[in-house]
Amino acid sequence: MSAKDSKIVKTEPLDANKAKWINTVLTTYTDPLGKTRTWEHAERPTRPKGSDIDAVGMVAILEKESGPELLLQKQYRPPVDKVCIEVPAGLVDAGETAEQAAVRELKEETGYVGVVSETSPIMFNDPGFCNTNLRMVHVTVDMSKPENKNPQPELEGGEFIECFTVPLTDLYAECKKLEKEGYAIDARVATLAEGIEIARRWKV
Amino acid sequence: MSAKDSKIVKTEPLDANKAKWINTVLTTYTDPLGKTRTWEHAERPTRPKGSDIDAVGMVAILEKESGPELLLQKQYRPPVDKVCIEVPAGLVDAGETAEQAAVRELKEETGYVGVVSETSPIMFNDPGFCNTNLRMVHVTVDMSKPENKNPQPELEGGEFIECFTVPLTDLYAECKKLEKEGYAIDARVATLAEGIEIARRWKV
Repeated sequence: MSAKDSKIVKTEPLDANKAKWINTVLTTYTDPLGKTRTWEHAERPTRPKGSDIDAVGMVAILEKESGPELLLQKQYRPPVDKVCIEVPAGLVDAGETAEQAAVRELKEETGYVGVVSETSPIMFNDPGFCNTNLRMVHVTVDMSKPENKNPQPELEGGEFIECFTVPLTDLYAECKKLEKEGYAIDARVATLAEGIEIARRWKV
Repeated sequence: MSAKDSKIVKTEPLDANKAKWINTVLTTYTDPLGKTRTWEHAERPTRPKGSDIDAVGMVAILEKESGPELLLQKQYRPPVDKVCIEVPAGLVDAGETAEQAAVRELKEETGYVGVVSETSPIMFNDPGFCNTNLRMVHVTVDMSKPENKNPQPELEGGEFIECFTVPLTDLYAECKKLEKEGYAIDARVATLAEGIEIARRWKV
């Protein structure tokens, strides 16, 4: 049994009256010249009241003796009908800070106990198409701690998540390799990899 | 007149029968244990037939004597009702490669003529929520070339895009500063910045 063993039975138009996880919105607005225009977009109706984000993603770095490694996941995603390579992530519960959600979700999804070192600005995933967003929380996992010796995820019923790690130095090459093997690469993973390559190439 | 001078008049539920830029889909699938499940997601109906991507984004780096600078844009986005900080990007026309679309869109939106150095894997913007994706095309802009001395964008009627540049070394700090000033940060920009910071911190 693996994430790859998911199969689409059928796809059909979503009935807006029955939709639980998605809203679509028509906005009428005036442009800088005062002309009236319209724009269509999608939203998550699940953002907690009072929260400015839908979700958190984790840049979880395992401090290994051989060098730092990024914790990644393989998870089947029906919207793209592929197994995706993603950073650990999760929706924020009501009343939680981004950092609390990150540490909780990391433990649930991967079993690792991490320490927060940085929280990113709010990032919008595709702001011409939808309003979904997240903060990336950077978490360091101390591999010498007893709780990180034998991490045990506590997955929910519908979750089939496989964890793996990639040395930071190999991340971009690994993204290309995984794509060739048929995986879909999440934008956060590939863009982190690009940032690392740019820092190297331009000696930043 | 600036990108900030856009104002929302009203928002309302989008009528799926009138939607031009967004489809919503209900997928029925079987999970790895054989259990039947459903998933809701949004799609762009505009992806050209035969194309595997919706759009391209550009990591456009201006080679300045003072150091490399990343070309960015300010653009009002109705889905988030804010001016967003984004990389130059555009939808792919039928029959275009990612590289052709990148060079064309860069010229149209910013006036700069660039040379492609790298094309990323396909990246999915939010694969639990929608199937929208892009490739990032890395473009170097030689500032000593006559065509890049006085770049003139050729914007379409509805486009109000302001270009600016940020030294690569300052990108993450600048994202935080721009967020404090009220801008929304696109995930590509912030994640590139994070990648650069990670490469520095972990000495990759």
